Amino acid sequence: MAAEQPKDVPTDPASSPAPVTGDEAAAPSKKGAKKAEAKAKKEAEKARKAAEREAAAAATSSGPVEDLAKDNYGEVSKDKKIESAIVNLRNVGEEHVGKSIKLRAWIQNARMQGAKMAFVELREERNWTIQGVVSASAEGEPVSRQMVKWIGGLKLESFVSVEAMVMKPLEPVKSCKVSGFELHLTKVYLVAPAPEMLGLGMGAASRAVGNLDDETASDAPAVEGLSISDGAPVASLATHLNNPAMHKRAPVNQAIADIRIAVEDLFCDYLRARRFKRFHPPSLIGAASEGGANVFTLPYFDKQAYLAQSPQFYKQIEIAGGRKRVFCVHPVFRAENSNSPRHMTEFMGLDMEMEIEDHYHEVMHMLEGVLIYIFGKLATEYREEIELIRSVYPSEEFLLPEPGKEVRLTFAEGQALLRAEGPPEYANVSDDEDMTTAQEKALGALIRKKYHSDFYVLDKFPVEARPFYAMPDPENPQVTNAYDFMMRGQEILSGGQRLHLPHELEATIRSKGLDPNQPGLKGYVDVFKSVGVPPHGGGGIGLDRVVAWYLNLPSVQLVADYPRTPKRLAP
Amino acid sequence: MAAEQPKDVPTDPASSPAPVTGDEAAAPSKKGAKKAEAKAKKEAEKARKAAEREAAAAATSSGPVEDLAKDNYGEVSKDKKIESAIVNLRNVGEEHVGKSIKLRAWIQNARMQGAKMAFVELREERNWTIQGVVSASAEGEPVSRQMVKWIGGLKLESFVSVEAMVMKPLEPVKSCKVSGFELHLTKVYLVAPAPEMLGLGMGAASRAVGNLDDETASDAPAVEGLSISDGAPVASLATHLNNPAMHKRAPVNQAIADIRIAVEDLFCDYLRARRFKRFHPPSLIGAASEGGANVFTLPYFDKQAYLAQSPQFYKQIEIAGGRKRVFCVHPVFRAENSNSPRHMTEFMGLDMEMEIEDHYHEVMHMLEGVLIYIFGKLATEYREEIELIRSVYPSEEFLLPEPGKEVRLTFAEGQALLRAEGPPEYANVSDDEDMTTAQEKALGALIRKKYHSDFYVLDKFPVEARPFYAMPDPENPQVTNAYDFMMRGQEILSGGQRLHLPHELEATIRSKGLDPNQPGLKGYVDVFKSVGVPPHGGGGIGLDRVVAWYLNLPSVQLVADYPRTPKRLAP
Repeated sequence: MAAEQPKDVPTDPASSPAPVTGDEAAAPSKKGAKKAEAKAKKEAEKARKAAEREAAAAATSSGPVEDLAKDNYGEVSKDKKIESAIVNLRNVGEEHVGKSIKLRAWIQNARMQGAKMAFVELREERNWTIQGVVSASAEGEPVSRQMVKWIGGLKLESFVSVEAMVMKPLEPVKSCKVSGFELHLTKVYLVAPAPEMLGLGMGAASRAVGNLDDETASDAPAVEGLSISDGAPVASLATHLNNPAMHKRAPVNQAIADIRIAVEDLFCDYLRARRFKRFHPPSLIGAASEGGANVFTLPYFDKQAYLAQSPQFYKQIEIAGGRKRVFCVHPVFRAENSNSPRHMTEFMGLDMEMEIEDHYHEVMHMLEGVLIYIFGKLATEYREEIELIRSVYPSEEFLLPEPGKEVRLTFAEGQALLRAEGPPEYANVSDDEDMTTAQEKALGALIRKKYHSDFYVLDKFPVEARPFYAMPDPENPQVTNAYDFMMRGQEILSGGQRLHLPHELEATIRSKGLDPNQPGLKGYVDVFKSVGVPPHGGGGIGLDRVVAWYLNLPSVQLVADYPRTPKRLAP
Repeated sequence: MAAEQPKDVPTDPASSPAPVTGDEAAAPSKKGAKKAEAKAKKEAEKARKAAEREAAAAATSSGPVEDLAKDNYGEVSKDKKIESAIVNLRNVGEEHVGKSIKLRAWIQNARMQGAKMAFVELREERNWTIQGVVSASAEGEPVSRQMVKWIGGLKLESFVSVEAMVMKPLEPVKSCKVSGFELHLTKVYLVAPAPEMLGLGMGAASRAVGNLDDETASDAPAVEGLSISDGAPVASLATHLNNPAMHKRAPVNQAIADIRIAVEDLFCDYLRARRFKRFHPPSLIGAASEGGANVFTLPYFDKQAYLAQSPQFYKQIEIAGGRKRVFCVHPVFRAENSNSPRHMTEFMGLDMEMEIEDHYHEVMHMLEGVLIYIFGKLATEYREEIELIRSVYPSEEFLLPEPGKEVRLTFAEGQALLRAEGPPEYANVSDDEDMTTAQEKALGALIRKKYHSDFYVLDKFPVEARPFYAMPDPENPQVTNAYDFMMRGQEILSGGQRLHLPHELEATIRSKGLDPNQPGLKGYVDVFKSVGVPPHGGGGIGLDRVVAWYLNLPSVQLVADYPRTPKRLAP
């Protein structure tokens, strides 16, 4: 039997790796690395041959085999320890060749090759994968045939802790991101097993979502919603969202999440560097400020509460409170029964508000500044993520204006452009009415052609298209000191100067047919009556939309960590 | 009449400040500064004498006076411009003496001195104040008697834009933070007027709150709740919160807000530097995960929704989703009818969760690390804010353990200490029952005496005191791998290792008398069944509590931007 063969191959480096001195491990010379590489290749060849011999011997034996490698695999336990230090896959290099490392990873693939060899694909994080090889040694330890069989049968997406020697493969392993090295496994411990069958496999999780309609939503069985496209399974958005762990494990979705984090962090960094201060607006409010439409209502002890639809009022209290420049990152709630790839019932807003010294364009330029800063950083420092996402969701490069050549049109200029050069159905669009989504998109296409930019500002919106707190243009009371920012023809930011004198505020509220003494408005106006509040303005950005439009994703629900729609409250 | 006097004093520098060259303004020599200082003093003296002469002359005249200074004051308008550049008060220095600057500020105080001179206290931000002086010139411009009278009568907390020459006062102005300089006002424009009477004056707003009971809450008239202490008016917490603009303008409250911002930013910085990734848990959830007690419920289209009581489930999905280390800053909702200075119905949580490699103390040490980092930074870089706050809310210095001497007791050790050295009523406290708030405080006092630290960890809580997802100690199933962190004897963090294997999770859920298939639990368990999830742990901090306990404030409601309690939903 294999286990009874004499353990007389101590020179086989695959079974007893030469101890590594600390110095070698820390700073190997180039020469040393080459030497190690050559040695490793030789040894790999040797090991392979030994395995072949062993396989031939085993073929002639039979009966139960004592497992000499039993401590080197199996479910993790207290006495199953790995002494080698963890080396993250992004750091694996020539200096590790021929040395033993520890890795904690997911089984992305596992298969037997013959009876004594198994290959696994190990994923550590995002798309960082490496090939692992294991073959039973002639003497049955450190690797036995039972161990190889157990490894080859590991369920996909199980989490394992492995000890392995880093080797150079004979040819680059094209299927893995770490293609220049492979791992010869000496210990494999199962830390967390995956189930027999996944609700969503890594293949489908890593491809573009199919059906965007979340009809089935959270009640649907997890495995529904798979279809076949070009021979590969494609999962619906619902299936993705019903399998959150697998959806989140897919490299493309981790890259989208990383871009979203970057957008938020860059927004905060830019404003903080300009003396903006963070605050947190409340989610629970005592009165619906914007007329009561599309607001979530809930019992609150003996009263009623509402979920905030915007931090507008609170940003302005901060200014009234002498905070000068503020920003916030906060959830926004909209009880709108819209089932579209543009809408969610809860989403993250990035908001800012600042005192105005002379002109509201100070605010507009600050907002242009922060967005151009974000887009510039994404294009340079997040190239890898963008390319990974594009390999799944193709998009054209997002065009930015040259510095000093920002694209700014008034609303009226935008409408004039649509009338003059847009599709015939827009030949009569009015300067006093808000644009439709379709008009916006058509204008976006015209502007891209004319100004070579996917990012532009529409300024001076008509009074009719703005809420009561918008400051009218002193030169032309038909329009306001308010703007929208557009990306690829879609709105991502709305902002402007606000009325700061209480009598003007009350007059505008009345002109909109509202009563300044109604709940939700009285408290608002009272703040401006309670002290002198300097002129101010700001804007609010939908975080998920910025990311979705920048990457040209088919739905904002691919950006939010836990999208909420009229049909979805889970997970 | 004064206005008819010949305008023959062109050399009066108060009325026509010598133009400043760009170079002088940018980089004055020390010598230049001294010269300018001497010149400015002389000129101030001259101006004062001229004003006296003028006052004597005016005393003998009567009738309406043409106002030659009328363009230099009054309500701001398009043609009332100030050309000088803004200099922020924190930057005013010798190099500005004798030069004209622009300032935008609040009127903190205004009074006449005789008929031709007025003093104002101008506040720019937090406690940055400076004295402004204005006296009517003999020739009636640039400063007329009407202008002086108007300035002296400005309502407190109005917002003004001023042009002024920076001068050295004869004596330091003790009442102002900028005591070494004063401003000789040449233009004062009212940007936003304050009302005749403030609901809460800066004096009371800047003192400690009186009555903490928010009984009157938001329906009370703003000016109620004032009492007198040591001859100075003291406002109740309710009055503070009902006057948000004035409450926020008080320097002490701005300093508290700045400390709160620092705690949040330092938390995020520390974790980000250790490869933690931010995510956003949802507020709206489909099922109440923690048994349904104290949860806000709302109609959600044709379903019901709940407001999240913790991001626990979502942090764990992130780990299941391969994100390895995550953190979030998010609102937490608790429908608990507790009217105490420790409770709010909505507050900000700082949460983290991470994979565990070998032992859950990796997580505990990470959390200790981030908190000690925060406290260290506060003590060194936020000294000014802390001292300002202490001048209103006295507190002892927060004691930290020496590096490497962190104070860590097991729950049982804590109880033993209470039994041995605590008050007699705790002579029989049990190791299996959670501590009361009073017990915690008593233990905190004992630990401060014994270990000279206000910050310590209680580890290994009994199973009975922990939720179903807590990992039992493998050595002793009566206790868990879970801990609380304490500040000044009060809990600020709760955390530990979580169960990651679905069969163990189901068993513990059952042992707590719950059904793993009930809504809210099934979705939770299903995630662990859907893939292999590595061991993990984490913890959650109440942001407002950390700040309140660190500063020894009487209520967490002084920390939150917009505190929410069972009685308060406004502003």
